[in-house]
Amino acid sequence: MTLRIAIVGGGAAGASAAARARKWSQDARITMFEAGSMITHAPCGIPYYVGGIVGDSSMLKTYTPAEFSRSRNVEVRTGARVTEVDLRNRRLRVEEGGSASYQEWDRLILATGARPAVPPVEGVDLEGVFTVRLPDGARALREGLSAAGTVAVVGGGYIGLEMADAARSLGKRVLLFEAMDHVLPTTVDPDVAEIIHEELRSNGVELHLSEPLVRLEGDGRVRRVVTEGGSYAADAVVLAVGVRPDSELAEAAGLRTGPTGAVDVNEYMETSEPDVYAAGDLVETTHLVTGKRVWIPLAPPANKMGQVAGANAVSPRSLRFPGVVGTAVTKVFRYYVGRTGLSDAQAREEGIGFESKLVNTRSAAEYYGIYETIHIKLTVERGSGRIIGGQIVSRDKIAAGYLDLVATMVSRGMTIDDAFFADLSYSPATSPVWHPVITAARVLSHGRL
Amino acid sequence: MTLRIAIVGGGAAGASAAARARKWSQDARITMFEAGSMITHAPCGIPYYVGGIVGDSSMLKTYTPAEFSRSRNVEVRTGARVTEVDLRNRRLRVEEGGSASYQEWDRLILATGARPAVPPVEGVDLEGVFTVRLPDGARALREGLSAAGTVAVVGGGYIGLEMADAARSLGKRVLLFEAMDHVLPTTVDPDVAEIIHEELRSNGVELHLSEPLVRLEGDGRVRRVVTEGGSYAADAVVLAVGVRPDSELAEAAGLRTGPTGAVDVNEYMETSEPDVYAAGDLVETTHLVTGKRVWIPLAPPANKMGQVAGANAVSPRSLRFPGVVGTAVTKVFRYYVGRTGLSDAQAREEGIGFESKLVNTRSAAEYYGIYETIHIKLTVERGSGRIIGGQIVSRDKIAAGYLDLVATMVSRGMTIDDAFFADLSYSPATSPVWHPVITAARVLSHGRL
Repeated sequence: MTLRIAIVGGGAAGASAAARARKWSQDARITMFEAGSMITHAPCGIPYYVGGIVGDSSMLKTYTPAEFSRSRNVEVRTGARVTEVDLRNRRLRVEEGGSASYQEWDRLILATGARPAVPPVEGVDLEGVFTVRLPDGARALREGLSAAGTVAVVGGGYIGLEMADAARSLGKRVLLFEAMDHVLPTTVDPDVAEIIHEELRSNGVELHLSEPLVRLEGDGRVRRVVTEGGSYAADAVVLAVGVRPDSELAEAAGLRTGPTGAVDVNEYMETSEPDVYAAGDLVETTHLVTGKRVWIPLAPPANKMGQVAGANAVSPRSLRFPGVVGTAVTKVFRYYVGRTGLSDAQAREEGIGFESKLVNTRSAAEYYGIYETIHIKLTVERGSGRIIGGQIVSRDKIAAGYLDLVATMVSRGMTIDDAFFADLSYSPATSPVWHPVITAARVLSHGRL
Repeated sequence: MTLRIAIVGGGAAGASAAARARKWSQDARITMFEAGSMITHAPCGIPYYVGGIVGDSSMLKTYTPAEFSRSRNVEVRTGARVTEVDLRNRRLRVEEGGSASYQEWDRLILATGARPAVPPVEGVDLEGVFTVRLPDGARALREGLSAAGTVAVVGGGYIGLEMADAARSLGKRVLLFEAMDHVLPTTVDPDVAEIIHEELRSNGVELHLSEPLVRLEGDGRVRRVVTEGGSYAADAVVLAVGVRPDSELAEAAGLRTGPTGAVDVNEYMETSEPDVYAAGDLVETTHLVTGKRVWIPLAPPANKMGQVAGANAVSPRSLRFPGVVGTAVTKVFRYYVGRTGLSDAQAREEGIGFESKLVNTRSAAEYYGIYETIHIKLTVERGSGRIIGGQIVSRDKIAAGYLDLVATMVSRGMTIDDAFFADLSYSPATSPVWHPVITAARVLSHGRL
């Protein structure tokens, strides 16, 4: 009998699952349901569309539904909202084109993703208040910001920073509000964030730290942002205070969630129900440094989880997703900023004895003359010397490559001695003779290396 | 009694040894002998001085002898040529200022480095024929090339390519002769070299492959380069056909050399004689993929070997140098080109069953629009899937960071599955959502990943 695989969600995880299931099985019947109009969409690109780097929001995808359907031999149903997972009868209730139908499955893969959190305050429903979610809605967002004189961004995480940058590209006055005392508060430490603060300010962003949102005010349209620090006029507001797993469907079906509130899956992407997989921003996974469950919704792990779910739906337990170290990077004006593993704050929270130091080095030999500063901080477990985290900021894009290097060192349990003796590249045009990552490791050796 | 440490050579390895010995011992008496006038010199920078990126050859160093002496409390003797290592009496014979003296030691560190190979053909002593060795001699090299109309570079290794680039920067007609059928013949494969060939040609370098040098002709001054392929007029010739360990002193003293011809040391940088260490371009080390002895003279391992020798001279067997994977990078016109581990050719020579594929990906998301092609090739052991080598070429400098990442994957024995699941960074501005290194690993999984 033909294996029927149903996939809910056509984003990174869902489409990857469909593609991988097809690679592993020529004859499975694979159906992918997507509530919106686009699949394989790239929400990470929305700020670049808003800021004008990307010309058209339709570019924020890899395939059209027709292309994907044809090249992968997958039935793609867009505009199809799955409203119920009926585990007992192994079927989905699907609403599309105004009517409902049922779709039976032998294997189910849930990949409904995440959605922006909306702060529980007054005024978030006013006209001119936006969240950043899917390319479907990006045009309204761009038009909304374009029409504004002053844009307020609430939240200094990755999306908030990218949206502040985009709004400045549109020539807007930009206010950025962060509830904590530094931007990227849950992922980087204050010393690293300080470099970004300066960059934001020098690019005309009015940065308001330690100002939690109190309410939005307006007359149908938003007019003012009220925080614990003041009241500010604004014509458009972008709410970027974080995301939440879009887990209603999974929870209604009784699938187990984990300590983070996201859907619980094991390394095979199996949920608590037989033959039901989940992948992507919907699920939590294991942090490779702490061994704890974490929810870090990002595209690259979502893609890989999708692959694992798709492969295992065809051939159970054939691939394992090992977990993550929380590697993330973005560009804020001229700076690339990235982090991996545990920040100092996270290490402290975990009760891990650590030391760290932010060092400033260069992206080429000094005599070469053409270089940027590389700000790099390694966090190291005291005693073992194990590198448990890294944070990098630079105007040189090579910082993102170094971040990947540190992420791999963290994943593989490498120590500062391992890093010191790593056979890394050197040419006067590409790095100092003492590689930035090695320099960052050396300073933590207390003169030993 | 005060420990007397003598170091022969003031380059990367020698100066690192001196600095580290001092860090580990406040009271050792450390003396460093350097035949030339500069220490902590950076021969890697010579092409950039010749090409005009570096204004003055005196910039090609980290410290003056006086600075180093003062800051490290090390006696630095420049212009001091060590002519004999007397093992029985534990003393060096040193010629300086026209007279000879003897210097006793309790620990000896040899760091005499490497010197350019000179091909055994007629005419290499003609005026206008240069090698690239030390910053001391860089001014003559720059003046010699500046005065020429046509510069011939013999040898298509790293230094040959960098000198061809430098000579074009000076506005010269440039002929580049390589005996083998592609540039970087001992380190990269033909498919990768082909990208560099195009770059050389499109930047006006007249590339002559498969043309071994037969002789140089002239009338006191060099006038012609004769190869197996023809006879070519040239006003200046740069010989860049490789380097050799500068091991006369060590060999005369009876120190054991290894299969590569360089001085044999163990992981503690101990030579075959008690209390005699050697480090840097003078010595061979272990290749971490093959386990074999290799001689790969480069600045970063030289610096680290120096550190190990310096530490162990003070406190025996306290640090270990684990070996190398042969990571190297350079910039050739607009391209960064790097390699690590084994090339296909090297894997073949080692009798290792392998597969590899050169893939072309991007240095940012396609919709982001601002990116360069990343050409990346991984070489993988058949069966185990272990990554044993990588070659990367791109106009985006991030390629050097990716090279470091692959070098670490190779060193740590990571497989294509490990690479696929590595938690690497992504933002639309820095990479495609499928990271270039992951893409290179995936294509070797035959549809599994």
